[in-house]
Formats: sequence, structure tokens, C-alpha cells
Amino acid sequence: MPDTLIKVDLSQSAYTNEMVHNRWHPDIPIVAWVNPGDDFIVETYDWTGGAIKNDDSAEDIRDVDLSIVHFLSGPIGVKGAEPGDLLVVDILDAGTLAGHEWGFNGFFSKKNGGGFLTDHFPYAQKSIWHYEGMFTRSRHVPGVSFAGLIHPGLIGTLPDPKLLATWNARETGLIATDPARVPPLANPPFPSTAHMGKLTGEAKAKAAAEGARTVPPREHGGNCDIKDLSRGSKIFFPVYVPGAGLSMGDMHFSQGDGEITFCGAIEMAGAWLHLKVEIIKDGMAKYGIKNPIFKPSPITPNYKDYLIFEGISVDETGKQYYLDANVAYRQACLNAIEYLKKFGYSGAQAYSILGSAPVQGHFSGVVDIPNSCATLWLPTEIFDFDIKPCAAGPTKFLTGDIDMPIAYD
Amino acid sequence: MPDTLIKVDLSQSAYTNEMVHNRWHPDIPIVAWVNPGDDFIVETYDWTGGAIKNDDSAEDIRDVDLSIVHFLSGPIGVKGAEPGDLLVVDILDAGTLAGHEWGFNGFFSKKNGGGFLTDHFPYAQKSIWHYEGMFTRSRHVPGVSFAGLIHPGLIGTLPDPKLLATWNARETGLIATDPARVPPLANPPFPSTAHMGKLTGEAKAKAAAEGARTVPPREHGGNCDIKDLSRGSKIFFPVYVPGAGLSMGDMHFSQGDGEITFCGAIEMAGAWLHLKVEIIKDGMAKYGIKNPIFKPSPITPNYKDYLIFEGISVDETGKQYYLDANVAYRQACLNAIEYLKKFGYSGAQAYSILGSAPVQGHFSGVVDIPNSCATLWLPTEIFDFDIKPCAAGPTKFLTGDIDMPIAYD
Amino acid sequence: MPDTLIKVDLSQSAYTNEMVHNRWHPDIPIVAWVNPGDDFIVETYDWTGGAIKNDDSAEDIRDVDLSIVHFLSGPIGVKGAEPGDLLVVDILDAGTLAGHEWGFNGFFSKKNGGGFLTDHFPYAQKSIWHYEGMFTRSRHVPGVSFAGLIHPGLIGTLPDPKLLATWNARETGLIATDPARVPPLANPPFPSTAHMGKLTGEAKAKAAAEGARTVPPREHGGNCDIKDLSRGSKIFFPVYVPGAGLSMGDMHFSQGDGEITFCGAIEMAGAWLHLKVEIIKDGMAKYGIKNPIFKPSPITPNYKDYLIFEGISVDETGKQYYLDANVAYRQACLNAIEYLKKFGYSGAQAYSILGSAPVQGHFSGVVDIPNSCATLWLPTEIFDFDIKPCAAGPTKFLTGDIDMPIAYD
Amino acid sequence: MPDTLIKVDLSQSAYTNEMVHNRWHPDIPIVAWVNPGDDFIVETYDWTGGAIKNDDSAEDIRDVDLSIVHFLSGPIGVKGAEPGDLLVVDILDAGTLAGHEWGFNGFFSKKNGGGFLTDHFPYAQKSIWHYEGMFTRSRHVPGVSFAGLIHPGLIGTLPDPKLLATWNARETGLIATDPARVPPLANPPFPSTAHMGKLTGEAKAKAAAEGARTVPPREHGGNCDIKDLSRGSKIFFPVYVPGAGLSMGDMHFSQGDGEITFCGAIEMAGAWLHLKVEIIKDGMAKYGIKNPIFKPSPITPNYKDYLIFEGISVDETGKQYYLDANVAYRQACLNAIEYLKKFGYSGAQAYSILGSAPVQGHFSGVVDIPNSCATLWLPTEIFDFDIKPCAAGPTKFLTGDIDMPIAYD
Repeated sequence: MPDTLIKVDLSQSAYTNEMVHNRWHPDIPIVAWVNPGDDFIVETYDWTGGAIKNDDSAEDIRDVDLSIVHFLSGPIGVKGAEPGDLLVVDILDAGTLAGHEWGFNGFFSKKNGGGFLTDHFPYAQKSIWHYEGMFTRSRHVPGVSFAGLIHPGLIGTLPDPKLLATWNARETGLIATDPARVPPLANPPFPSTAHMGKLTGEAKAKAAAEGARTVPPREHGGNCDIKDLSRGSKIFFPVYVPGAGLSMGDMHFSQGDGEITFCGAIEMAGAWLHLKVEIIKDGMAKYGIKNPIFKPSPITPNYKDYLIFEGISVDETGKQYYLDANVAYRQACLNAIEYLKKFGYSGAQAYSILGSAPVQGHFSGVVDIPNSCATLWLPTEIFDFDIKPCAAGPTKFLTGDIDMPIAYD
Repeated sequence: MPDTLIKVDLSQSAYTNEMVHNRWHPDIPIVAWVNPGDDFIVETYDWTGGAIKNDDSAEDIRDVDLSIVHFLSGPIGVKGAEPGDLLVVDILDAGTLAGHEWGFNGFFSKKNGGGFLTDHFPYAQKSIWHYEGMFTRSRHVPGVSFAGLIHPGLIGTLPDPKLLATWNARETGLIATDPARVPPLANPPFPSTAHMGKLTGEAKAKAAAEGARTVPPREHGGNCDIKDLSRGSKIFFPVYVPGAGLSMGDMHFSQGDGEITFCGAIEMAGAWLHLKVEIIKDGMAKYGIKNPIFKPSPITPNYKDYLIFEGISVDETGKQYYLDANVAYRQACLNAIEYLKKFGYSGAQAYSILGSAPVQGHFSGVVDIPNSCATLWLPTEIFDFDIKPCAAGPTKFLTGDIDMPIAYD
Repeated sequence: MPDTLIKVDLSQSAYTNEMVHNRWHPDIPIVAWVNPGDDFIVETYDWTGGAIKNDDSAEDIRDVDLSIVHFLSGPIGVKGAEPGDLLVVDILDAGTLAGHEWGFNGFFSKKNGGGFLTDHFPYAQKSIWHYEGMFTRSRHVPGVSFAGLIHPGLIGTLPDPKLLATWNARETGLIATDPARVPPLANPPFPSTAHMGKLTGEAKAKAAAEGARTVPPREHGGNCDIKDLSRGSKIFFPVYVPGAGLSMGDMHFSQGDGEITFCGAIEMAGAWLHLKVEIIKDGMAKYGIKNPIFKPSPITPNYKDYLIFEGISVDETGKQYYLDANVAYRQACLNAIEYLKKFGYSGAQAYSILGSAPVQGHFSGVVDIPNSCATLWLPTEIFDFDIKPCAAGPTKFLTGDIDMPIAYD
Repeated sequence: MPDTLIKVDLSQSAYTNEMVHNRWHPDIPIVAWVNPGDDFIVETYDWTGGAIKNDDSAEDIRDVDLSIVHFLSGPIGVKGAEPGDLLVVDILDAGTLAGHEWGFNGFFSKKNGGGFLTDHFPYAQKSIWHYEGMFTRSRHVPGVSFAGLIHPGLIGTLPDPKLLATWNARETGLIATDPARVPPLANPPFPSTAHMGKLTGEAKAKAAAEGARTVPPREHGGNCDIKDLSRGSKIFFPVYVPGAGLSMGDMHFSQGDGEITFCGAIEMAGAWLHLKVEIIKDGMAKYGIKNPIFKPSPITPNYKDYLIFEGISVDETGKQYYLDANVAYRQACLNAIEYLKKFGYSGAQAYSILGSAPVQGHFSGVVDIPNSCATLWLPTEIFDFDIKPCAAGPTKFLTGDIDMPIAYD
């Protein structure tokens, strides 16, 4: 049985765990060293460190302090890894911490984080998803069940000081273009809620003042929220610091492409990863690697029957954009939501399905001026009833007496 | 054997064919009527009407008059179809016109159309792809072969006058924001090269003056360039005019998600579609349909082993964008190109592969401010050699003595 | 456009075509020579040479003279191929001869050929299947439609004299153990209906007297009836004579594993194959090859939702067999037929579906004495209605007013 | 977290566990009752109850007492289930008991059980497979690794007295045709090693004297060894006794179609199943069910690139059989073994791969007298090196210094 390098106690604050951190900084001390070829287990908190509860109120979503996320387990050092190498990580397996067989999906208030469709869903809402073995179901979103595709929303290596400075410069530069925006354009360093692992005192204060927030994906990986980094996949990470410094968290039981609901996928209350690490010496230059690359798992859900929604870069008010794939994907999502409402779902429930089920989002056409074309692929097999179009028209399978909790600002 | 409703003679100008048109307008006369339940065959020109040749020069790409595209076969009327219905189109099959077993992929000059990576590939280039039965190979891009995924890049229904007016208003409005831009933000009506089917005289002149250009995808479908509208798929189109008026063309032997090379996929020199049509009465309202929806084919390439490249919304100069999926997908594409160059491909060849092979492009994360995360999925099985990363580093399988023709401005 | 090496005229008797033969013998002259690397097209008769008609009577099935089958196109010589080599054949594509978009599936009378379930279906029956592009449907078997998986039921290389002698010896030896059996245990050479290609006179008479019948699969390939040798697959054949001598026919539009109905799959009225050939010198010894091996196509139907029926080696009378996989598979088939009858199919219709749809048959357990366990995989997506079990029980979607024609002995 | 209904202590003899049994008999007391809709966990011993060790000797395989198998957890009663119903079992998940991350694959001595290829591998051999998360590798069979497809080799419902009598009658009848055969044709009741769950005294003695052995699959399911009854599948079992009486064991981490090595698949040292049960009232008659039917899992390995070996019903001595699918599949297996030997594997290693990897075995042609045609599908992606044929011939990747332990009789 492989060693568990990092354990978490979900009954205690994540801040009490020295093998956890919530900022990126090269000074965060390695918490455990392994050799190339080793496999080991890492436990993780949910991304909020337990702020969201398995209940029927969305107030916790509304009120969450987003400066505390994401609680990451690590960094783990790999002996012999040097800047310029590739760190090869096999996600050998992943699963649930016993007794915590549930996750949450939600929408942030537009005033506290927002989301991809925040103009349509401006208030905090929440759905709780229970696991039934490999599958999941929600008491707040009836009529749908699907196989999990467990993956870390966030996994990456430590930046070196130069890369960290680059991140902070470009992101604070962006913020400066519209500093009052709600939600903000980006998140600057924020020392007061920083958890810098084993660092204390002045060293901690210095690192916390510079530590990059964990929200965006960056060159080292990070919060990519790629549903396909699932158990069985193999990832090749750039190495920037000696030992690589691999950290991870934000485990998802399932997610749709885009993680459009932002809060988030099906966020696992407690989870573990079983990893194996190898090194490709000087791999960054050998393969011209700037961002991580990966190979998908040989085991993923076989859903094959999709209903596919198109969206173009004309928004819901009729405004024309120039080849804007975001607008196009947003329209595809809105089109899918309208469709699902015909079967009795509330808009919020439909949105939650798109955020949490193994939905695909494709860049279908990106050059046909002025309209980008995006497609959203909704697997039909995940529904308890038939959602395919037919001459008779849709049946309202859901009566509307169940909906997702909402918490107004 | 089903009837061939529309035939094309590739040795004659497409302008001589009255069953073809290159603009969208409700006045374009229906060229043939069918009943719901009928199946029939439609032949198509390549999108340029034969302007691009099977040779080793890119001058035709450089010099092409883009105001002439796309030559569409139709419109076909479906008896009983009324505004508000859904027209259900089964693509029962699709193939090559005998004797024309080749297609082209190219990049437009930045001064004449451009493309997704036009800043990196500013000059016209071309690759010719030959079909080997179900498969294709290029004499200009060695070492790669893949199964075709034949589909119409462009298929849609006729707009009614109100929808047409909406299109023209919003697109000319966009153009007006930067009218001198090269390439342009959009294409306005352009009567001089319009082909309005059977229309002549004053009726033609009026329609040509208003006729929407065929480049962008819109609410009626149109130039979606969705590789998954392939033989075997089933599409549900909104109906805006009596009879629906279904037209199609721009047939692709294969394409990557995004059709990033713009000129285009593997553009079939001559092709045919075998279609079947049905109607869902009042289907737009019943299902809340604004854009077409579709179901994928039960027969598509089974490629399963991918190498996946990530891109984030920081461009190649280091500039930070706010959740810009286009920038992210562009970075994923550039990352894949750099990778393929390590095996001996020129950048142009790698770009051509991404535009023509069954590559997937996913919106992976769209909410993690400020970085969108996009992924490009490159099937490894299409290469004659192993492109997976390994400790030994890449082997240059290609010697570089073969490249794609280029034509400087 | 590749050359068509062998053409067929379906309005003429196959016996008039010198590029066709219906026995295996090394003396049959090569009809065309190609080079390694060449690709070319071959047209084929249906396996009976046109004996079965597109009508609503099964009398042609009942009365067919089985000594005439199979009419094969070839043999084609590959320059440089020598005994001991492997002949690599890519099935680049396959399709229908224009105007012959139909095929037949039938059961032979028990007195004239029989079939896998001949004790349950002892009389000749027939269903005609029409192609709708890539798909097929039968006017005799309503409620089911599926994508074709076109393949040659029969393809192989010429035997050398020694191999031919081995075949004749072992098969006539088997016949001798029960020479009066109906249906027979095997088919001996039968000169009177032999078609030996270009051979005439004494040479023909000699070869016809020895020529092996084409019914069984053998070391050279032959009538393997493997549905997975479909368009896009790559086959490695042993070579026994100089030039290899590749012949083919018995084209199927679709077939279930086992071709249990014997007459047969969906037998294409007229078809063509697009092939490419290569040679692996001395490949038989290098790879230890005794029978052909192959790689499946990258394009096959994606049906994923199956209902799977188990069968064990206890027959329908309760008789216990010892690890007899045939009995087990027969039980799985009978179980599937009983199940489908609950939805309104006649037994014959259900049997026809199992013979012609892309059904899988697996050896699931072959060692658990005394019961072999076989499974039959029925794709649920091919039916127009839902055949999955549910608490409410099955619905009779079919009224029974349509059935397959039958012809009593 | 679901309840664990049955626990096992692998450090104790399975005979000490009253919630376990190794014979089928209606008198075996139900050990736990559940309601329709409940989900729960069941732990299982390996099929031999711990007789095989994680070491490098095959003596335990040679010497195992096969009268003790299989140790099954159960029977579990489902309230309301009555004879004639269908018991619907969802395998929600399955996994390894912590600390027991290994399994064994072996061949029995021909004198003690044998196997599908026992004439070629007459002596006991063993390979130990370690799990690396979702994957497995063997120190005795280098160069191969694959994703697990965890499933119960044995799962079924209790027979009623009449069914039990039928089994015993037909199997003892078979044995009587050749009672001295080694290995035997079937296994009769054998009281001395029977474990009848909670039964004691006279009741136990009576039941043990009649209890059917667990080796063969039968009408109730039982030892089907169907690799596709994997986690995520849904099985419909006939119900013969009130409460159904569901028992299970013989968990496999992975298996090839046929479980040809007999001892067996990758036999899990200790495992658990997470199940959910429902009832379809009167389902046996409603759907015409004689044997279980099932739906496969939406999550299974995506291996797509196969090398496929044909076999016909002529055995390795040249003997001709009449449509014998067993002989044909055996030939396909032998052909695959010869092929793998060219890459450096011993015959035993190749045999072990075929027994344990996700290999498919298909009935390809079952009617072409006199030769049945079977195909064995070997996924090429499971090997660390390329096993596809090429012009250069095979490379011996393995040096032969590692082989499977053997124990001579």
C-alpha cells in the first residue's frame, strides 16, 4: 500500500495544517521528498477548506471569503528535478475520503465572484451532489445521474522568483485597467489570509506579500480546471525550482468543460490522489514546452449520444462581437439551458447540470468573421428520461417543486 | 437510388449554374421541392468555385477573390415547412465526386483574409491532400494520415427579411467601428460578385444589394464549420421562410476544431451529400430553439490516444487578457506547433495539420480570472511515427526537404 | 482516381466473367498484376451471383444451388510476393454499386444449408434491407435501423498445392464420418458448377476436380465472415504462391458476430472494394503467422449502449454439454430472440436482426466446467423504440402484421 | 457512507465466517436483509479463501484443494423479492481491501483442474500482479500494464430446490459419461469441504450433501466470469427463492474474455463491492428471461487499437472439427501466443497476458462448415513497446531472464 504523504483532518481548519498552502511562492517549504518512480497518496481539503456545508441553504456560498482559496496539499519535492526538466505525473487513482461522499456545485453572487452566466444568475445558489459509488445524483437537481470523472481542478509546480514576478506584474497590470470592477479582473496578492505552509514569521510575511493567488491557471499548470486531467491521465509539468514542488487540491468529482458555474464543478468535500512521478531531464527545451501537456486516461465515461447546441458571437441582446469565443460559448450554454427548461428544469438547475456533468465545450469555428461558433455537447444518457427532440414536443418530466436553494445578497 | 436534385459541372464556372448561389436572401428562388421523408442527393462545388488548383503553388490562395465565396447548392424547398418549424436533416452519407479525389488546405495572406495565426503565418501557403479511400495524405505534409470526417462546412436555411435585416445591421455596425481594418471585422453585402441563383434583372440587383455574405455562422446555421456535422449526423434547423430553403456547400473531407487555417479545412474539390428531411411543426417554440442543434454521427473516427496542449489567456508577448478564450486557444495551438517542430515539421506544416486533422479544441476553464484555459487535443495515432514524449527526447523523423508552397504578397 | 481492376456486370451470369472464380486452386490464373504500394478497385457480385432477388418471396432462398457459391473477384497478383511473405492489405474503402442499394438476409432450409438455429427456423425465409446512405432498414423487419459496417465476408490468398491437398484431405475425412448428414458436415470438391476463372479445357477440368470449396475459413483467410474486416481495417495474409493471388467477394453491408443466419449477413447485391497492398518479406516466420491477423478500422459504429444476453452450455432441452461454446452462444441467441419477441417481433425477425445488425458475440467464460458462458451484445440504439427492461414491463411496439416471407420445403 | 453488510478478515480462515458459503443451496440462511432501493457494501475473500500467496513459487497453485472454492459473501435477502421477479443489481463501485493491492493469475496443473490450454501448459504456474492505482503490472510478466476492469467473477441468486435438483441431475449425468476423466467433466456435490454459511448440524449436513458446486455458471448467474460485469454495470437476475438470496465473490481486477487461464483472471486478494438493488415484479415472464441479462458500464477502458488473431476449428495437430468454436478460439489464442513469443515473452507469460488483460474473444463466424472462426483481440496499447507488425520484423524487447514460477507435479 503506498504511503500517504499528506493527510488532512476535515474537522480542523486547513490553516492548522502545515502541509497545506493557499498561495504560490518559491519559498514555500517542500513538505515531503520522493524519488523518481515513487508512487504515493495525497489527501486534500475541498478548495474552500470546508466553508461550504452539506445543507439546503446557499448562504455559505454567498458569504464565502474567496481570499482564502484554494487550499493545496504540498509542495512535494522530487529528488533530482531541476529547472528545465519535465515532471511526469501519473494520476494512478483518485477517490473520496471515507465518510465524505458528497460534493457541492454553486453559483457565486455577482458581487462575490460571479460566474460565466452571472448576469442571468446573479445570486448565490447551491446544489449538493451525493455519490452512489462511481455515480452521482443531487437532491436539488432531480432526474440526472452520471459517472464521476474525478480530477484535481488544481495541480501544478512551484514558480521560481522570476516567473512569480511575471505573474504579479501582468495581473496587477490588468487590474489597474479597471480597479473597481465587480467582479474584479484578477486577484492581487492578499497577505492577510495567506497560508504559506510551514513558513512563519518574517519569512512568511515576505512570501505572503508576494504570493500569487491560486485562482488562474498559469504556465506551471495551477487551476486549469480541465476535467480530463482525470484519474488515469499522465501530465508533463514544467519544472522551475529544484525539486519541482508539486501541489494540488480543488478535487472535482465531475465537471463540464469550462467549469462555467465557477463554484465550481462538483467540489469534493474531501478527497485523495494516488500519484507517481518521473522526470524527463531538460524536457522543456527538448519538447518546446511552455505550458503543461498531458495524455488522457484510458478510462473515462463512454457517453456517446450527445445533443449539441451551437452558439455564435452575437450576445443575448443582439450585440455583435468580433470572433469572440467566450460570447459564442456563453450563447451555446444559454441555448442549452432554454432547451432543458422545456423539460421542467429551472434555469438554475440546468446551469448546474452544465457546470457539473461531463459536458463538452468545443471551439468549432474560430475564423468565420465576425462570428465565432462554439458548441456545447450535452450527453443525453445522463438523464432519467428522454431529452431528444421529437415530433410530439418535449414532456415536462419535472414538476418544479424541487429547486436549488438561493441566497439573495 | 435516390435522385440527384442538384448537379454541378466542375469544368464550368459556378456562376453558370442556376441551382447555386453565394449570398443569403429570402428572394433566392427555391430550385427544387421535396416532401418530408424524402431523401435525395445534392452535388457541390468547392467553396471557391474552383479557384484553387491541385498544384504546388500558393499563388491561387494569395490571389483568390474572397468576395465570390461560398458557392452553395440550393435552396431546396420542403413542402409544408413553415416559419417556426424545425427542419430535421439527416446527413445519410457524403462523398467525393469521382475523379476529384483531392482537397486543399491553406492560409490566406494577412492582407487577404488572414487566419487564426495570421500574425505568425502572414503569407499565403497551400497543402494538397489526396484521398486514399477513407483516408487522406498530403504530398506537402509528410508523415501523417487520417480517416476523413466528411461534413458540410456550410449548411443552413434561408433567412426571412427581418432576420436578414438584423444580420446586416449588426455586422455593418461592427464594421463601422474600424472600417479600415485588415483583415476586416466583417464583410458587408457586395453586389458585384453576387450569384443569386435563378434571379435575374432587377430582382437580382435588389437581392444582391442586400444579400448577406456567407462567411459567418448565424442563427440559421450557415458557415458553422463544425467538423461534427459529419455524415451520419442529424441536424435540427430553425425555419424562417415557407419551404425552409435549405442550401449547402463548402464540403470538408476533414477539419480540426476551429478550422483555424481558415482556407480552410481539407476543402473538397467536388463533393456530394445524401440527405433526408423531416419537419417538427412549431419546433422552435416547443424546444426553445434559437440556433440549430444536432446529434453526432454513430460513425466517427475512433482516435482515442491524444496529446493535449494547454493554453492560457496570456499571449505570446506576455500580455495578459481577461478570460479571453480565443487567446487561450491560440496559445494552445502555438504550443502544439512548437512541439511538432521538434519532430521535423515546419511551422506551416504543423499549422496545416491542426487545421485539417480531427483535432479537438475544448473550452477547459472559462471562469478562473483572469486566465481562460483552452486545450487542443492532437490524436497521436495519425502520425506515421511516435510523437509521445519520452525520456530520450524527440526524434527528427522529417528532414525538412519537403515543405508547403508559399506565395509572398 | 484509382483503377478498377475487375468489373462486374450484374445483368450477366457471373460464369461469363473470366476475372471471377468460385473455387480455391493454385492453378487459377492471376487476372491482374499490381505492385506493392498500389491501390486499386475491385467490383464484386453478391455471393450467389445474383440468385437472390429484391422481392417478397423466400423461394429463391429455398431453391438456391449452394454448389455455385461464392463468386470471387480475382485472383490479383502482387509483384514480388513470395511464399512465406505476408501480404498487407488495407481496405481503404468499400461501397455499393450504383443502382444496387439493397441486400438480403435469409435462413436456408434445414434441407439446403441450414444455419445456426436451423432447428428453430427450419424453413427458408428472407428479409430485404435497403440502404439509406450509411444506414440500412428492412421492409420486412420494422423498427430497426443501423449504420453499415461494410466488409468482405470472404477475402484470401491462393493456396499452394500442398495446402490445398491438406484441406481436401481433412475435410473429406470429416465428411466420411457421417456422409449422409443433412446439412452435410462439409462440402467436397464439386466440379460440375466450378468456375475456375480463365481456365478452360483440361486444365480447368483438373483444377475443378480438386478445387476447394469456398465455404469455410481456412489458413489463407477465405470465408471468415469477420464483421470487423471492415472498411479501414488492415489485414496481414500468409502468402503461399508467387504473387499471393488475392481474391474477394461475399460483401456484407453489416453483420452480427457469427453470421448466425448463414444466408447470411446483409448480402450486398453489388459492391466494390478499394484496396492497397504491401509486402512484409518472410513475414510468416518473422511473426509466427499461421492464420491472417488484422487491425480494426479507426472508423466503426460507436454504439455503446448494449443489452447483453448470457447463454450457458445447457441446451434448450436441458441437455448438459461439456464446455461447448457453440451451445452457449446458441442459448444466448435464443435468449435474445425470446426477449425481442416481447416487443412484438416474430422469432424470424429477431433472428434476422441478430444475423445482420452489429451484434457482438463474446466467449465470456470457457473454463468453468462443465458450462461455457457466451454473451450476445445487442446494441439498444439501433431500435426505434426503447428495448431496455423497466419496472412497467415491455411494450409491444410492433403489431405483427409485417413478417418475413417464408418458403416451405 | 453506505453500510458494510458483510466484512471479511483475511487473516482468518474463510470457514470461520458465517456470512460466507462455498456451495449453492436454498437452505443457506440469508445473512442480511435489505430493501429495494438500498445500497450497501460487501467484502469478499479471494476465491480460494487465501490459499494463494504473494510469493515466487507456484507450489500453492499446484497443491490447492479445488473442492473448497469459491468462498462467496452472502446470501443477502431483498425484501419483497419473490420467485419470478427480476433482481436488478447495480454495481455502483468495486475496489481493493486496503493493504491487499495485489492479485494472482495462474495455470492449474493438468492433474488438478487444468485450463483452456492445459495440453500446452500442463504444470502449475503463477504470476503476481500489483496494482498501481487503477492500473496493474506483474513482476513476473514485464513490459505490460493496463487499467483494471474490476468485476465479480461470480455473482448470483439462490436456486430453489427444483432448480438445484436439475443442476445436480444434469451434471452428475455428464460425469457419468466419463467418470475417470482428468480433469473431470464436472464437479459433483462434495460435502466434506462444504461451507454452508450459518447452517450447522444436521441441516448443514443435508444441505452440504446436495449443495451445487460453484464452478460453473448457471441459470442464476453464478460463476459466469464475464469481464464486463464490471463496476458500473447493471445486472438483471432471475429470482427463485423469496428474498432472492444474492451472493458474490471471486473478484477480478481484470480478465480476458474466456478467463482462459482458469486460475484465473487477476484474482484479487481481498476486495469489496458497492451494490444497489431493485426489483422488477414478475420480470422473468414479462421479459422471457432464463439467464441473467445485463447492461455494461459507462466507464470501461477505452483501448481501441487491437491486433486481432484468427483461429479456425482445425486443431494444432491438423485435425478437422465440425464448427467447434472452442477449437477455433483455442487456435486464436495459440496464434497470439506464438506472435508474442517473437517479442521475447515465454509462452507462459503470453498465456498469462491473454488470461488477465482486457482481451476480447469473439465468435466471428459460426456457420461456415466445417470451420468455425474465432478472433482474439489483443489491445496493443497495454504494452510498453510496439507490438504491431512492420516490414523490419519484431524486436525482442524482453531478454527472457524473467519468467513465471513453475511447479512440476
